[in-house]
Amino acid sequence: MIGAAVFPVEPWQVREPALATHRLAQSESVFALANGHIGLRGNLDEGEPHVIAGTYLNSFYEQRPLPYPEGGYGYPEQGQTVVNVTDGKLIRLMVDDEPFHVAHGRLLTHERVLDLRDGLLRRTVDWVSPAGRRVRIRSSRLVSFAQRAIAAVDYEVEAVDREVRITVQSALVADEEQPQPSADPRVAAALEHPLIAVVQDTEQHGAVLLHRARASGLLLAAGMDHAVTAAGGFDEETDVRADWARTTVVTVLRPGERLRITKFLGYAWSSSRSPQALRDQVAGALTGAHYAGWDGLADDQRAYLDDFWDAADVEIDGDPVLQQAVRFGLFHVLQAGARAERRAVAAKGLTGPGYDGHAFWDTEGFVLPLLTYVAPHAAADALRWRHSILDQARRRARTLGLAGAAFPWRTIHGEECSAYWPAGTAALHLNAVIARAVERYRTITGDDALEAECGLEILVETARLWVSHGHHDAGGAWHVDGVTGPDEYSGVADDNVFTNLMAARNLRAAADACARRPEAAAALGVRPDEPRAWRTAAAAVHVPYDERLGVHAQAAGFTRYAPWAFAAEHPGEPLMLHAPYFQLYRRQVVKQADLVLAMHWCPEDFTAAQKARNVDYYERITVRDSSLSACTQAVLCAEVGHLELAHDYAWEAALVDLRDLHANTRDGLHLASLAGAWSAIVEGFGGLREHDGGPALAPRLPAGITGLRFRLRHSGRRLLVEADHDTVRVSLRDGDDARLALRLYGEEVEVTAGAVVERPVVPLEPLLPPPTQPPGYAPERAGAAGRTGSS
Amino acid sequence: MIGAAVFPVEPWQVREPALATHRLAQSESVFALANGHIGLRGNLDEGEPHVIAGTYLNSFYEQRPLPYPEGGYGYPEQGQTVVNVTDGKLIRLMVDDEPFHVAHGRLLTHERVLDLRDGLLRRTVDWVSPAGRRVRIRSSRLVSFAQRAIAAVDYEVEAVDREVRITVQSALVADEEQPQPSADPRVAAALEHPLIAVVQDTEQHGAVLLHRARASGLLLAAGMDHAVTAAGGFDEETDVRADWARTTVVTVLRPGERLRITKFLGYAWSSSRSPQALRDQVAGALTGAHYAGWDGLADDQRAYLDDFWDAADVEIDGDPVLQQAVRFGLFHVLQAGARAERRAVAAKGLTGPGYDGHAFWDTEGFVLPLLTYVAPHAAADALRWRHSILDQARRRARTLGLAGAAFPWRTIHGEECSAYWPAGTAALHLNAVIARAVERYRTITGDDALEAECGLEILVETARLWVSHGHHDAGGAWHVDGVTGPDEYSGVADDNVFTNLMAARNLRAAADACARRPEAAAALGVRPDEPRAWRTAAAAVHVPYDERLGVHAQAAGFTRYAPWAFAAEHPGEPLMLHAPYFQLYRRQVVKQADLVLAMHWCPEDFTAAQKARNVDYYERITVRDSSLSACTQAVLCAEVGHLELAHDYAWEAALVDLRDLHANTRDGLHLASLAGAWSAIVEGFGGLREHDGGPALAPRLPAGITGLRFRLRHSGRRLLVEADHDTVRVSLRDGDDARLALRLYGEEVEVTAGAVVERPVVPLEPLLPPPTQPPGYAPERAGAAGRTGSS
Repeated sequence: MIGAAVFPVEPWQVREPALATHRLAQSESVFALANGHIGLRGNLDEGEPHVIAGTYLNSFYEQRPLPYPEGGYGYPEQGQTVVNVTDGKLIRLMVDDEPFHVAHGRLLTHERVLDLRDGLLRRTVDWVSPAGRRVRIRSSRLVSFAQRAIAAVDYEVEAVDREVRITVQSALVADEEQPQPSADPRVAAALEHPLIAVVQDTEQHGAVLLHRARASGLLLAAGMDHAVTAAGGFDEETDVRADWARTTVVTVLRPGERLRITKFLGYAWSSSRSPQALRDQVAGALTGAHYAGWDGLADDQRAYLDDFWDAADVEIDGDPVLQQAVRFGLFHVLQAGARAERRAVAAKGLTGPGYDGHAFWDTEGFVLPLLTYVAPHAAADALRWRHSILDQARRRARTLGLAGAAFPWRTIHGEECSAYWPAGTAALHLNAVIARAVERYRTITGDDALEAECGLEILVETARLWVSHGHHDAGGAWHVDGVTGPDEYSGVADDNVFTNLMAARNLRAAADACARRPEAAAALGVRPDEPRAWRTAAAAVHVPYDERLGVHAQAAGFTRYAPWAFAAEHPGEPLMLHAPYFQLYRRQVVKQADLVLAMHWCPEDFTAAQKARNVDYYERITVRDSSLSACTQAVLCAEVGHLELAHDYAWEAALVDLRDLHANTRDGLHLASLAGAWSAIVEGFGGLREHDGGPALAPRLPAGITGLRFRLRHSGRRLLVEADHDTVRVSLRDGDDARLALRLYGEEVEVTAGAVVERPVVPLEPLLPPPTQPPGYAPERAGAAGRTGSS
Repeated sequence: MIGAAVFPVEPWQVREPALATHRLAQSESVFALANGHIGLRGNLDEGEPHVIAGTYLNSFYEQRPLPYPEGGYGYPEQGQTVVNVTDGKLIRLMVDDEPFHVAHGRLLTHERVLDLRDGLLRRTVDWVSPAGRRVRIRSSRLVSFAQRAIAAVDYEVEAVDREVRITVQSALVADEEQPQPSADPRVAAALEHPLIAVVQDTEQHGAVLLHRARASGLLLAAGMDHAVTAAGGFDEETDVRADWARTTVVTVLRPGERLRITKFLGYAWSSSRSPQALRDQVAGALTGAHYAGWDGLADDQRAYLDDFWDAADVEIDGDPVLQQAVRFGLFHVLQAGARAERRAVAAKGLTGPGYDGHAFWDTEGFVLPLLTYVAPHAAADALRWRHSILDQARRRARTLGLAGAAFPWRTIHGEECSAYWPAGTAALHLNAVIARAVERYRTITGDDALEAECGLEILVETARLWVSHGHHDAGGAWHVDGVTGPDEYSGVADDNVFTNLMAARNLRAAADACARRPEAAAALGVRPDEPRAWRTAAAAVHVPYDERLGVHAQAAGFTRYAPWAFAAEHPGEPLMLHAPYFQLYRRQVVKQADLVLAMHWCPEDFTAAQKARNVDYYERITVRDSSLSACTQAVLCAEVGHLELAHDYAWEAALVDLRDLHANTRDGLHLASLAGAWSAIVEGFGGLREHDGGPALAPRLPAGITGLRFRLRHSGRRLLVEADHDTVRVSLRDGDDARLALRLYGEEVEVTAGAVVERPVVPLEPLLPPPTQPPGYAPERAGAAGRTGSS
């Protein structure tokens, strides 16, 4: 766990006051910059030391074999892995004859700041070389939201007390050495040097390198250009080889003099275009960036973010830790999706190589619920990406013997890459989660056009999937058998409540959409009997309920299973590290919210009393070995009145990476959890839900939060909600005729521009006392000193 | 499928009248010779052409990695694969200057005969070389039952019409080229050249080669010695290299003159002994073989088999095809187990590399039921092998979080090698099947000593496993959740009836054994409360029954699942080739007898009416994509009165390899199916069961079998049962005081020596008409012309 000493609690930035060498891997992820298309890990300018050097282009991947010791029909044979592309972040510095390195000489100061408002990563260094030459270095880095193909580094060196010769080598390097990507040598071999040089070009102040990924065949172009300012004269030259290019600037600085180099980086990739076209595209992008200059790019970045925060910011009074963390999460979720433009939003965004760079249900399940409210254009593009892989999903469905489309559990390019079917193929619920995102985009944004463009087809094809997999029993009840719900400690079960309820919603949404757009439906070949069958199945969906215990069974038979015997040997450690699936699957132990998630996403299907009892039951057996759990538990705990427990879970979701709670932030950030932290606050403490297409609110704050203000976009309006322990205020921040109907503590109200709706907070008496968690698995208390202790 | 033209129907032999080059791979398996320790595939003497060259030593294996694209806790990391050891079968012949090869020159005759009574594989060849030199070759091969470490080849060449120079090269060759063992290069690399030369020695008329398996470290010694007789003089010399040795004999034969070479082969391996000790052991074995000479070895072979057939033969009147096949099966099952002596009996015996040479539940489930009746010493040794791997099974149980011992689903050396847990680890029933074999050995042979030696410990440790995995629900019923029964098209299910009933028997047998041997139980640390808990669980075992349909559900919920939609595209093909487990696991389709096997092995747990209804229900959804199904279906179909259908299934089980019905006889024989054919006949048509420790009989023959006589050993007696459509005769073939109590059609009778018990056949009117099978999956009719058509 990372303590607060590494990243002090500050409202609008993440700052590392001194280089935390032992947290280098984590800071590479935390300080990652991205715009959804290009991602740069927070590696040091000079490249070394590093744990994982990372430069990513969304969906630029290499193909690799998936070897099975015992295979089976329909097992994916090819995997896809995100590639560390040509690294353009590198700026190496020599002071006289010695290279700058943080571990050599004396590091007087070293500070890095990720500014969440202007989107820059700034670094200031004061260094004395082993030979006693002192320099100050200031660098700023950005990945442009405004110019999608562009990143830039502004690098400045100043001589302090003596005249020094300064040599700066700005490089592009392909096929950097990477940590062993797999214990399997076949896989390692495929990924060790995936890039084959194609073409190199020297530009006026830089170069362009083109490479092709060996097996996937994807073509990549990376280019750099430079603008140099020096106190006196300087020499500049550029060398280019197959796998690297280097622009070298040499000058002599007297004390107080500075050398400034602005490095513009351009990236592009394609599966179909020619090297020439790609080279020209990058050269063109670089020209555009050069024209804007560093200041122009930085101004545009700030403007983009100002617009974002204007309708996205969440203010939390009384809990500065959560305040910083939720903004950090919002910023990174924006970075992952902003300019993805019909490419996947991966589970780790573009912050690291974790999960092979794959996108999962995390996108639609956790990231889009946030983006739909705060950056709807990005949500729309993510759904367009799903639509673009419908053909792969249809083929997958055929392989599985099913109709419609079966979206991949994990993928980059659309093909299923999951090599363990009980937790991949069997997690059929993913398809209903996608359908939910489609439907929510329409009702929250009010944008009907996307449904016509692609949403309807997704709804229809997923509905067809469900009716081909589910079946009606002799009594007419509709069942979905042999699937795995969100809880990965329960695989291949029948009638998983989450899956069944979400499938029913998927089926109704598809039928409704076809009714709204009969011509478009007919064009998709929807026969009149299909929506009828969908509604029949949805109406007859079977939902296991244990009358004896008065709770829902997560899946058929679940509440009859043996309890999990928590061993004393590994308190609080993930169970999967010490127990086989064979045992986990048929015990009453839950990795991550599953039935509880059903209550979050299908709130109308449960009574308040059922919610209270179910929360109580499942809290006692849930271990949160997945980062996709705390946020959901926060929302439901808040709903049933366990506000302090909800606060704890909100912390856990929000601090997943700033505190490295799952001990794998090195591989990239947990975007779903970061987005989920927003959900914990806004849907948990704000009580935000969507009812019949309109928002519902029911703010209730825990003791440790004295005030909460959140902004979001709804139906084209900008909504502001302000709450403390006594009063709630809801207002619109748009023009005179703006109005929005919503439900506040169950009361229908209409908010109009300029007229704040104010109500007293309606308190909720919880039906049951706060539940306990399994031994060793209780969340840390929000605000507890222990959370900031270790580093 | 192989037609009858390849192997004509003859009662006591399998003969190939002409070389069937297109069936070479299958004849290599069919003509394999083995004694349970050494196995020689039926490769031609001269080694080429071959499909799979095979020489095996029981349990001599190489270790290899098991690579998982997505691993999990408790997944086995190391596999074990049987190794093609140093090949001593090779005898190459040169006629003048041309090598003998069946595809060159002219093959006037080529006949091979596997004689089931004397245990020899004989070959006669009449060949004209490309240069027109004609020779006759006669060779005989044996793997000695009497001298466990010895195999031998008697090789004779005769000049026919001209004087020819004959050169015979008799070889030992290590690390022969093998078919690609795996698509995975890591695995292939580990297995391509597994043998490292250690020591070589020239002996008087031969050589000994020692090799070590690279990763497993096992040491192997292979030696050859020769006895040469020639009409005139001859030269003999021996060359030895690291990976081969060659004894060359040269002579000149005039027409009618012969050169005869008897080649003695000695094999040994060890995990602990020194190369010197192993070399001496092989040299000693060769001296012993030389002393016996070919005739002595062949006489001993015949004597061993005479003794075997005396109490094992099954005679079938009216169906010569089944007659040949059942003897073929009995012979091969004997070959697999006769001298295994505390080594595994693999699923393919020592006939081929299929399933990596692993032993499965096939051994205790299908092979031992036969061996216990006809070669009890071999059954005892197989159980001693199980006992010898208890430590590995205990460690495996600990890994799984369970008590007691969890035997491996597939292994050579005892460690779990199954790389797909839903059909490996989850097939927990294996442990109860082993316990059943222990118990049946005691009750059928009357030998109590094995229980004290090792049976009790197996029963206790498996009982401990069951109670640690199973659990009592709130109402007290005992459940076994998340397991896979015999049917591999239904994985990870709850309360599989077969598993539950077998587990209950295991628990009761363990408790009974502890009661019989309180001191031994105490020595194993059995606490007094343990047998009580075992009996409590067994008494409370839950057995799913579908009241609506009046049949047992194979597992909880099974009869509620959707039916399988049989596609028109692949009629009769194994479903697993075209459908994923994801679909198969939750449909009502059955790969192999599961509930039906429960009725065979736990007959008292079902009423006659339940059996009839269950057979009817499961017949309609069983596709027999496993070779472990037809035999069980035969037994139960016979029991409920579908005698003709039982006859069809008996054929299918018996002809699995002679007709290559599963299209993989190339990889080795299906020993469980061959043993199961005996079961189909003796337990099916003979009605043999064990009731309270005594045999029960109820012979009823199908129309196509006019008479059935079978022999077996029971309680130290040799029993003969003779039946036709009218009369049954039961007699003992032992001394004056021999007597045996048994049940005949439910009547308690006592058979005494010299007094034949004779009764009229009691016919059975089936409760239901014969069922149909899924479209395309009906068995071929026994005796149908189609069975002998293709070749």
